[in-house]
This record gives sequence, C-alpha cells and structure tokens, in this order.
Amino acid sequence: MITIDLNCDIGESFGIWRMGNDEALMDWVSSVNVACGFHAGDPSVIRKTIQTAIQKGVAIGAHPSFPDLQGFGRREMKLPEEEVFDLVLYQVSALKGICEALGGQLHHVKPHGALYNQAAKNSSIARAIAEAVKSIDKNLILFGLSGSFLISEAENLGLKTASEVFADRTYQPDGTLTPRNFPNAVIKDTSLAIAQAIQMITTKTVTATNGEKIPIKAETVCIHGDGEKALDFARNINLSLKKIGVTIKPIAR
Amino acid sequence: MITIDLNCDIGESFGIWRMGNDEALMDWVSSVNVACGFHAGDPSVIRKTIQTAIQKGVAIGAHPSFPDLQGFGRREMKLPEEEVFDLVLYQVSALKGICEALGGQLHHVKPHGALYNQAAKNSSIARAIAEAVKSIDKNLILFGLSGSFLISEAENLGLKTASEVFADRTYQPDGTLTPRNFPNAVIKDTSLAIAQAIQMITTKTVTATNGEKIPIKAETVCIHGDGEKALDFARNINLSLKKIGVTIKPIAR
Amino acid sequence: MITIDLNCDIGESFGIWRMGNDEALMDWVSSVNVACGFHAGDPSVIRKTIQTAIQKGVAIGAHPSFPDLQGFGRREMKLPEEEVFDLVLYQVSALKGICEALGGQLHHVKPHGALYNQAAKNSSIARAIAEAVKSIDKNLILFGLSGSFLISEAENLGLKTASEVFADRTYQPDGTLTPRNFPNAVIKDTSLAIAQAIQMITTKTVTATNGEKIPIKAETVCIHGDGEKALDFARNINLSLKKIGVTIKPIAR
Amino acid sequence: MITIDLNCDIGESFGIWRMGNDEALMDWVSSVNVACGFHAGDPSVIRKTIQTAIQKGVAIGAHPSFPDLQGFGRREMKLPEEEVFDLVLYQVSALKGICEALGGQLHHVKPHGALYNQAAKNSSIARAIAEAVKSIDKNLILFGLSGSFLISEAENLGLKTASEVFADRTYQPDGTLTPRNFPNAVIKDTSLAIAQAIQMITTKTVTATNGEKIPIKAETVCIHGDGEKALDFARNINLSLKKIGVTIKPIAR
Repeated sequence: MITIDLNCDIGESFGIWRMGNDEALMDWVSSVNVACGFHAGDPSVIRKTIQTAIQKGVAIGAHPSFPDLQGFGRREMKLPEEEVFDLVLYQVSALKGICEALGGQLHHVKPHGALYNQAAKNSSIARAIAEAVKSIDKNLILFGLSGSFLISEAENLGLKTASEVFADRTYQPDGTLTPRNFPNAVIKDTSLAIAQAIQMITTKTVTATNGEKIPIKAETVCIHGDGEKALDFARNINLSLKKIGVTIKPIAR
Repeated sequence: MITIDLNCDIGESFGIWRMGNDEALMDWVSSVNVACGFHAGDPSVIRKTIQTAIQKGVAIGAHPSFPDLQGFGRREMKLPEEEVFDLVLYQVSALKGICEALGGQLHHVKPHGALYNQAAKNSSIARAIAEAVKSIDKNLILFGLSGSFLISEAENLGLKTASEVFADRTYQPDGTLTPRNFPNAVIKDTSLAIAQAIQMITTKTVTATNGEKIPIKAETVCIHGDGEKALDFARNINLSLKKIGVTIKPIAR
Repeated sequence: MITIDLNCDIGESFGIWRMGNDEALMDWVSSVNVACGFHAGDPSVIRKTIQTAIQKGVAIGAHPSFPDLQGFGRREMKLPEEEVFDLVLYQVSALKGICEALGGQLHHVKPHGALYNQAAKNSSIARAIAEAVKSIDKNLILFGLSGSFLISEAENLGLKTASEVFADRTYQPDGTLTPRNFPNAVIKDTSLAIAQAIQMITTKTVTATNGEKIPIKAETVCIHGDGEKALDFARNINLSLKKIGVTIKPIAR
Repeated sequence: MITIDLNCDIGESFGIWRMGNDEALMDWVSSVNVACGFHAGDPSVIRKTIQTAIQKGVAIGAHPSFPDLQGFGRREMKLPEEEVFDLVLYQVSALKGICEALGGQLHHVKPHGALYNQAAKNSSIARAIAEAVKSIDKNLILFGLSGSFLISEAENLGLKTASEVFADRTYQPDGTLTPRNFPNAVIKDTSLAIAQAIQMITTKTVTATNGEKIPIKAETVCIHGDGEKALDFARNINLSLKKIGVTIKPIAR
C-alpha cells in the first residue's frame, strides 16, 4: 500500500490582514505547517489556527522563519548558525506549548521560505535547525526538501525526517528545483502537476527538465495554500491520489 | 523559620543593546523573570539568559508583556481579554520550551510592566492571564502584586500564587502602591528600603504613608535589576535578611 | 454653490498582505489619507500608493498612527504628549518627503484609529499632533472629527482644519459619535447613510439618535475604503451628491 | 590648506536602551549620521538627536539601513533594488522633514552597516540608493566607501559624494578593507590609527597589508561612536589633525 502526506502552510494571516482559506484547505491535506509569528501569524492567529487544526484532526507542524514580516520570510538573510538555532528554538517552543495547552500535540517542523532554502543548500544552517528541533523533542519530524542538506543533517542527528516534493515545480537533472526566475520553473497546468505528483509517489522518480527520469524520495507533497486556485488544487490532488489507491495520511511519529 | 523569595527581572537586553548585570545579580536572588521578546529579549538573549539561570540554580520564570519594544512594555495598551490570553500563551510557551530544551524547568510567570499593573486592577485581564498560564501548566506559580486581582483570580482558578511586595516603594493605607508620580512613591534610602522589606517579611505588615501599620502578604520581594546600585542593593538585602535568620529560597512548586 | 471633500484611507496593505481597492476608490474621492508604516503600509506600499494618488490627481494626506501593526493602530495606547509629537513628526515627514520626491505635494494630515479618537477627546494629545504638523508645514490642513479637540487645538495654533463627518455613523445629541459597541452605532442602509451625508452637507445639521436635529460642521466626509461594498458606496455617494449639485473637491490650501 | 571631515554615527539608542555618548562626541566631529529607526533610533531618539546636533552645529546626515532592529542593520539581507530605493526614500525623507521642522537642514546621507557594504560592492544597490537620495534633494551629499560603487554610481547621477576612509581598519592592495574576520583587519593601537589617518589625508595614500603604498581618496574619516574609548579616540584624532594644520570641517554642499 502506498501512502503519502499532503502538507500545507497555514496561519499566515497577520493582525487585520487575512491570507489563505485555512479551514477549507484542512479538509484536503493531512499535515499543516503553522506560521510562528516571524514571517506571519500573531499570537491570536496562531491560537485560532491551532484550535481549528486540532478540530480538523490534521498533523500540526511549526513553520519557523527568519524575522521578516514585511518580506514574508522570503528575503535572504545571513545569520550566524547560533542565531538560527535560537530563532528556531524560540518559534518551535512557542508553537509546541500552544498546541499542548489546547489539547493537541506538535508533530513536525518545516522551516519557511528563505530559511527553508538556505537549509537545503547550507549544511551548517541545516544542522543548526535540526539541533534546535532535537533539543525540544527528539520525536519531532523535520520536513525538508527531498535530497537536501536539511534531510541529511537531521538524519545525522537521529531525527526522523519527511522528504518533501513539489507537484507544481520542475526539477533539474541533479534533483534540485528549477529556480523560480527560469521560465519553466512552475508547472501551471493542474493536470500535469498532479501527474508529476503521482509519478513521484508511485514510481519514486521525477522527469527532469532535460527529459531524464531521475530518482526522488517523496514522503510529503507541498500544497500551496494561497491564491484563488489553491483549494481546487488541494481537492483535485487529494481525490486523484485516492482514486489510484494512494492513502493520504501524516508521517508516522 | 521564615522564608522569602527574592525575584529579579532579567534578560532585558535586545539585539546589540545591553541592560542589567544579570549574571552577578543571580548570585543574590532566588528567582528570575525572563523577558520573552515582547518588551525586551530576543531569541538569542533569551536562550543565553536561561542557560545562565540554569547554571546559577535560580528558579526561572517567564515575564510576558504587551507587544511594545519601544516603550519597554510600560505604556498602557487596551487589549481585549482574548488577545491578552493569546499573548501570554505565546510568550510563556516559548519560554517553557526553551527552558526544557536546555535542561531546565519553567517555575513561574510574572507579567511585566503595564500588563502587571492592569492585571492588578482589572479582574478580567487578571483572569485572562491566569487562564493562559493554567492552560500551559497548572503547576506554574503566578506572581502578582500582593492583594491584587491577579492573585485572587489565579487562586480562583486553583493556581498557586506568590504575593509580591516592593522594598523600595511606599504603600497607601488601602494597601496599594503609591503611584510613581507622587513625590513619596519611592524609598531612595537603601537602609529604609531594607527595613521595610524586613518588616513586611517578619511582621506581615507595612507602614503606610499615613503612618498606619497595615497587613500585607509578602511571599516574594522584587529586586530591580537595572541601574548602578541594583547589584549593591540585591547583595545588601540578601545579606541583611540572612543575618536576621530569614531563609531566601524560591516559592515551592 | 455647495462644495464638499470626500476622503478615504488608503495604502493600508503591508508586505504581502493586500487591503482595499485603492486605485478604483480614487476615482470617487477627492482626498486620500496614506498610511505611514506604523499601523499599515511599508516603504514600498507607500511609494506606490503615492505614485497612484499623484496620477489620479487626488489631494494626498498623511495618516499617522500609534506604532501598532498587529492591532492596525486601533488599540488604545497611552503615550506622553512628547512621544505623540515625535511619532507624528516622523511619519508626516516621511510622507511629505516621498510625495515631493515623486513630484507631488502633501496636502493634509489625518490621524488614524486610536490616535484619531484620543485627539478628539484629549486636548493635550490634540495639541501635540497639531504642533507636530505645524512644525513641518504651517500650510498643512489638519483633518479631525467635527467639533472635537483636534479641530479646536489646531485652530488655536493657526492651522487650517477640515471638520470630518461620517455618513454611516449615528450621532449623539451632544454631537459625538455613538460608540461602536452600541447597537445603533452604524447606519447599514446605504441610502440612509447617503441621506445623512446630504443632510449634513446641505443643512449643516444631523439628526441625533434621540430624533433631535443638531448643528454640525461638515467639510469632509469619510468614505471607508475596505470591505466588499466600499467601492459601491463611494461611487454612490459621489454620484448622489453631484446629482443634487454639490461640488466634490479637496479642501483649499 | 588641507581640510577633512570627521563623521560619526549617532542616535543609535532605541527606546529605553542607550548607546554611545552622542553629545560629547559631537564636540570632536564635523558631521554626524543619524539612525533613522530601521536599525536603531525611534521617533523620540531621532528628534532629540537632531535637536542636539543642530545646537552643536555639526552637519547632519541620514543613516538609513535595512529593516533589522535585532541585528542592528548588520546582517546581510537580499532585497530587490526597488525595495532598497523605497526604504532609503522613506528613511531619508523622515530625517529631512524632522531636521527642517526643528530649524536645521539635512546635509548628507550615509547608508548603514550591511546596506553600506552592499552598496560598496553591488552597483545596482548603489544606484538604487543614489537615485532615492537624488529624488529627495539633488544637493544631498552621498557618503560611501572610498573607491566603491556607491561613490561612482552617485557621481554618474550627478550627486556630490564624500569618499570615506577608516583610521582603524587595514586596507588590501586592491584598496578594499581587510574583511573583519581576518586577524589584521583592525588597527587597535590608537597612535597607529591616527598615523594612518594622517597619511591618508596628507599624502592621499594608504599602506596596504602587503606593505605597498596605494592611492586613496580621503574626504571624510569615520569615527566610531560606541565603546569606552570612542570619545578618547575622537578627541585624539581631532587634536592630532589640527596640530599638523589640517582643518576639520563638513563637506561643502
């Protein structure tokens, strides 16, 4: 039996500003990554988001970021490893405590935006994140880009990981994502994106931009939460996967 | 045998800016209240402060505040009770997680500045704080102004409390602190301040500004951490209390 | 000939989060109040907003606020008058410079949210705001609640003012707005709101909640910029006023 | 007659946290660069700093930064040129307006920290800064690292510039500063630092780390404002330069 996790970033409203359609999305994913207040989210948004996630029964993760509200955590920042450790420690601790106070349990951690990208390419940053997560709870699952340093460093520390793949992004022959500034970086056709997800999940390969089939480990698929079509896509990929017999459920702790 | 707790606010540096003489102060107090990042402290300051506190063996508390870095949490803000609950939940959760990740344990919570003052006078705010603390860990001790709503609301919820008194502030006949804008609000003479502390601890009374002796419950004495004389005062009051046989130790959980 | 100004708050997006339909709204108002970065807006949002306002030919005002991004400047904060002076000085200076750098001119200042409300009721806060505005440019027009301290203090300092009225809020017999927590505070029926605006503009009276007609000075009408119906309402009131011969144009400097 | 400008960063306190000895330092420098609120400074600190600078008669500059209070603007951030333009426009506008409101005049702009370093090496960032400055006032003088892109891009746009040198930093044979992580990056001996400043000012050369004398343009010398010895150094270099007949005065507009 093939199983896969579908994960989605949520809780990315801030103050009066709304983003995403969190509640509806939670019906179609098995895991959610909750913004921790550094790129989005505030204490009230976080508490409400976690309450809803507990009600919906999805696996709850922390989604820590560089401190950059204006840039939504997407702008590169260069921080010493120690500061990265500290900011992950702070954010994940906050989320874990709120989960538990509300009767839930923190299940995983997935770094956000520029921090996620740095953790993929820079082993020291990856290690700092993994060490922070481990210091909080060695049973937390660390989500990272499939094949990246975040996965390998976490495994070196003995953490359980989830290799993340993207349905709607193209891959290079070396297994990395095609950078967003390339014209063919994004797969805009929904059925092609779903087809790529199915290929990755069922065959453990992806067809790179040069046509070559390369191996890829797919344990969780990232579903984008924002934009008009996000909900449609989430439902579509969920139903398509179920139709071919794939079971959608969170990574086991 | 008479025992008392001496507590001090610490971890109030931010980024490059330093405040207080935390490490030295910890030799003379039994409990510390660590800023949580909303009025002072950042993830790195917090982590280092808690590491030091664990090494020094003092009881560690969270010191949550209104979100007001520029005003150091001292400016009045009017927030709905629900938002107060949420911001206490977030900050205390972060501190608890960091303590535990570093091998320590969170012992208590003391609201900071304007939040502390509102919690003293406003029972709804007091209750929101107490509920947040209880939701995280019902064994956390809530520190509040002696005789205030924060103490009574926490007790109504079944939380253990610590009634806080001030050595260097004068009291009104009704047991409230003389407001800071009154000329006689602060006791500047160190020996008079220590004498007032001793009176409160040993006789459970304080002499109000009108000369009347009034009852007061003193379980923890606040030691200010900043200013040139803070360290001297902390050592002085510590040694003076020990000299008369008072045992200085944290509130028992 | 009767003239009136219609003003609207704009530039209230922040980072990735969008708010309002600024560009379309500018077709139906004569003045705009641009958020300055303290309750909403960031340097990029502000620059783009002012560029659009210059293109549309509307009168551009600064919309300074308490520093409270999470609370959208709507939460009461208690600041010393001097700090209020300083934060208005900073925000209005920033907006003025950006306007001029882009080839425009700053026309007016309208405090936002909790600062607006405090300035209406507290003469010291009103005076601090007016002094900051005057120190920057004595020809700036200060917008304030009709009949409030902000208007009188600004006039005491020799500033030109614009008395603001609300089409969709009810008034008390003493000329103040019915507080928002009262059931009849808001006029939800668009045609009634427009009728109230027309009455205020043409007869210089408003019918208070007790049925009494009271005098009111109406120089500018506030048009809310957010919500689904905001654009409809703006067009409606604009066309209704023009239909009865009222000229819509900015307050003359 | 040889003249030189001595400049110093000031106004780098924030809220309750103090930094530097601004008032005393202003007696020994001819120009000051005032933090604009993004890496340090808040509206009240800025206003007070500018008031003092006007009283002391030093030339006042804006010292804009990346938005990074916790990192004091020293952490690398990667922003699109347009956002750099916008944040310089905002910060310099705020400072210019405050100067003028208080009866002074903004004289120059010097980017801070990581923004200064990026502007030295990256011509697009340099150009974005120069364009923002020019759009505000084409007579503002742009301070940048001697020989850097910030100087050349500003000159391409027709702006007046000031080539900045450092008394206490060593130079590489190619004229760049030795990176701070090199052991010989900083000249700790005060008399050697002053000797280097005198050499740069009087001979238009500096002796690089390999012993080679290389040409350098020195129009303004950076005096560090923080640290215990800052004031001593400022007085020392000021008096040493005067002793050999160098006139200390701001760059002429």
